Amino acid sequence: MAEENIIYVGKKPTMNYVLAIVTQFNNNVDHLTIKARGKSISKAVDIAEITRHKFIQEIKYGAIKLETEVLHGERGDSNVSSIEITITR
Amino acid sequence: MAEENIIYVGKKPTMNYVLAIVTQFNNNVDHLTIKARGKSISKAVDIAEITRHKFIQEIKYGAIKLETEVLHGERGDSNVSSIEITITR
Repeated sequence: MAEENIIYVGKKPTMNYVLAIVTQFNNNVDHLTIKARGKSISKAVDIAEITRHKFIQEIKYGAIKLETEVLHGERGDSNVSSIEITITR
Repeated sequence: MAEENIIYVGKKPTMNYVLAIVTQFNNNVDHLTIKARGKSISKAVDIAEITRHKFIQEIKYGAIKLETEVLHGERGDSNVSSIEITITR
């Protein structure tokens, strides 16, 4: 999958990500993966659901993967959960 | 699916839910669904990942469903995203 087909969810408002996804689908991308970690996981689900219900009804879910990533910090390693939501048109 | 095979994630600490799940699997339950809405979705993913990595390694993910639920409140309806994570042993 090309790098541009991945949306990394961070601290921006939910609608920024939704509009980025809608733009990509309008540019003939046919599938796209939304990735998030930790507290942003809820936002990733919101983004997928808002895109699907309000903007592009024909979107379907592909694989939804849950994983644990190890973050190496100054005060030692910590684990953080992550989600990958693949959506296809 | 019997009602006791559903874990609803709310405001309790993450480990409470993990221990409830481990207890159910130890009582010969072979599959179980974790449900959460809104901000609790991140916690649901943490619960699934901690259970799988720290307690019961042979757990596998079944269906993971994302949906939008309509909440009817005093100030009108609002939408909230939800997740259902099925785990099987």
